[in-house]
Amino acid sequence: MVTGNAIAIRQASKRLGHQTMRFETAPAVVASASVVGLREGQGPLGRYFETILEDERYGERCWEQAESRILKEAVNTALGLAGWKEDELDALISGDLLNQISASNFASRNTQMPFLGIFSACATIAEGLLLAATLLEAGVAARVIAAASSHHEAAERQFRYPNEFGAQRPMTAQWTATAAGAIALGLPADGGGGAGWGAAADGSTGEAQLLPRITFATVGKVVEMGQKDPYDMGTAEVPAAWDTLLAHFRETGRDPAYYDLILTGDLARIGSEIFREGMRRRGLDVSSRHMDCGVLLYRPEQDVHAGGSGAGCAASVLASYILKEMRKGRFRRVLFVGTGSLHNPVSIQQGEPIPTIAHAVAIEA
Amino acid sequence: MVTGNAIAIRQASKRLGHQTMRFETAPAVVASASVVGLREGQGPLGRYFETILEDERYGERCWEQAESRILKEAVNTALGLAGWKEDELDALISGDLLNQISASNFASRNTQMPFLGIFSACATIAEGLLLAATLLEAGVAARVIAAASSHHEAAERQFRYPNEFGAQRPMTAQWTATAAGAIALGLPADGGGGAGWGAAADGSTGEAQLLPRITFATVGKVVEMGQKDPYDMGTAEVPAAWDTLLAHFRETGRDPAYYDLILTGDLARIGSEIFREGMRRRGLDVSSRHMDCGVLLYRPEQDVHAGGSGAGCAASVLASYILKEMRKGRFRRVLFVGTGSLHNPVSIQQGEPIPTIAHAVAIEA
Repeated sequence: MVTGNAIAIRQASKRLGHQTMRFETAPAVVASASVVGLREGQGPLGRYFETILEDERYGERCWEQAESRILKEAVNTALGLAGWKEDELDALISGDLLNQISASNFASRNTQMPFLGIFSACATIAEGLLLAATLLEAGVAARVIAAASSHHEAAERQFRYPNEFGAQRPMTAQWTATAAGAIALGLPADGGGGAGWGAAADGSTGEAQLLPRITFATVGKVVEMGQKDPYDMGTAEVPAAWDTLLAHFRETGRDPAYYDLILTGDLARIGSEIFREGMRRRGLDVSSRHMDCGVLLYRPEQDVHAGGSGAGCAASVLASYILKEMRKGRFRRVLFVGTGSLHNPVSIQQGEPIPTIAHAVAIEA
Repeated sequence: MVTGNAIAIRQASKRLGHQTMRFETAPAVVASASVVGLREGQGPLGRYFETILEDERYGERCWEQAESRILKEAVNTALGLAGWKEDELDALISGDLLNQISASNFASRNTQMPFLGIFSACATIAEGLLLAATLLEAGVAARVIAAASSHHEAAERQFRYPNEFGAQRPMTAQWTATAAGAIALGLPADGGGGAGWGAAADGSTGEAQLLPRITFATVGKVVEMGQKDPYDMGTAEVPAAWDTLLAHFRETGRDPAYYDLILTGDLARIGSEIFREGMRRRGLDVSSRHMDCGVLLYRPEQDVHAGGSGAGCAASVLASYILKEMRKGRFRRVLFVGTGSLHNPVSIQQGEPIPTIAHAVAIEA
């Protein structure tokens, strides 16, 4: 045994404080794609999605395989937009809400993509982005895709009840999105200091586009404050969002005004209000620059109650509206804070509270 | 849209071929710990485990929370052996077999450890090790623990039947281990080229110990060959193990003779035979240096049929016997190949075959 014989450890030059990573190479988002269901397509962000499904079973015989196909379609679309072949991809990092991240496993089967499975509920795409950026920063990969998905029908029957049962949803409930988002990351060959998106290959870009780059990530801790209601996940996730944001601002020395947009996903309507109020009380007012993926994805009249949720919600909103508007310069500095409820149906039945997490990723164009 | 405007991407200097990462800093295993159940403690590796439980419920009121506590105990023991405080840990990377990796989520709740959840079934500890090494290589973390767990009773009732039901297990079935393993990684401050384990802190090590270091990892692809029987997972995983090993030897230029030990986890008895025969036919004979975690963990007379499995099986065997014997010099060059079956109960009920994966991690003392 080695007690008392601890080895002196080299400090990490790109670590700020206890939770924040600094990406010196600033890995770039070189393409992104999203595939969504009909309800999501009819929402306010409809025109930003690559594919909107008429049939949410997508020609498959069950919801679970449909989710896999939706995710695969998002990944393949991102690959195409990046101009990469499947066998050029160094890693697909993906997760979803299905037990044993089944959608991701089946989406990857018999492809040529080295695969790393992750789980962080609705924060999955945030974990995927920070791990993808780490692989690039380390120099052990050149082309990485981070992806996440969810499917309303598959999630409902796994976490709650089959839709046919017609269970009543309280107004605090969020609507699990049928959606997948995939984000392709790489380091531009020319260093890419502010270089226009797509300028390198043929110089024929119609309009100058900015290149969103990942500069920092703050890894979350698992926070559990006693909330036990799976029909109010937004509220459960708020303390984790506070915890991670406070760490981010403390460790980077930045304040909310540094960012054009602080984007949570998914606190939804009720959680967002509590989140903003709590930040104000902590002396960090984010009200003028806060948006939430669960609020952005649907119109209030679409009957989704508190808003959207699911690993595909934040992934698709980020991969579509946010990153596309960043390329046009509408948002220059975005702090994306993925928030997730880490319960499972068994833990809820056993009376356990909901553990939650939030990971923050700074994306700057 | 950006089709046709692909950005030229910088190549990764530490990438070999399509799947292999080279870790220039060679992150070191600075401590490891394992906690196992009674049956595992009575197996041939009993003396290598830090804790053997008499009560597999570990004072908790359900198997699921017991698994969380076992995992947490393994992580805390590894922290103690490394001489690290909880709030010094830059990341805990952990996964398990429970839906939504519930054991890991609950083990991390309200701790000070930044948490990254992963899932790769029985290959989870391999994915955790390669991601931990990547964080260190990138310089975004200094102290990382990779961990994984499984619990026989919790897994049986989730994946198959409650034990009380008394379902008959065929001889190809593997026994899900009640076990957790945690492995602490860091970069020694002195560069550590062959430096003795534990020499830095007080110089009082009883015997010289070697420092196992992670030098390469080969990330697996998801392979599915039509096998549908969840009672024969070892056989299902063999093609993934072949695929990853062939890539590893091709991309590194090494051959099986380079390694003292090629350790799979968990093909168990039946899968191991098919694995070795297939490697021989591919001109890469590993027979004289192959062992499997699922075979090592139990004695044949312990009635586990084909052998052990579960995310905690490979994690605990690696964290105990293998890494401790590496420190003593019994093994100098180990290629650990974590293999996982990525099905879930729903996919089996829906008649889908079992997707599988294998990740290889080269550990050299």
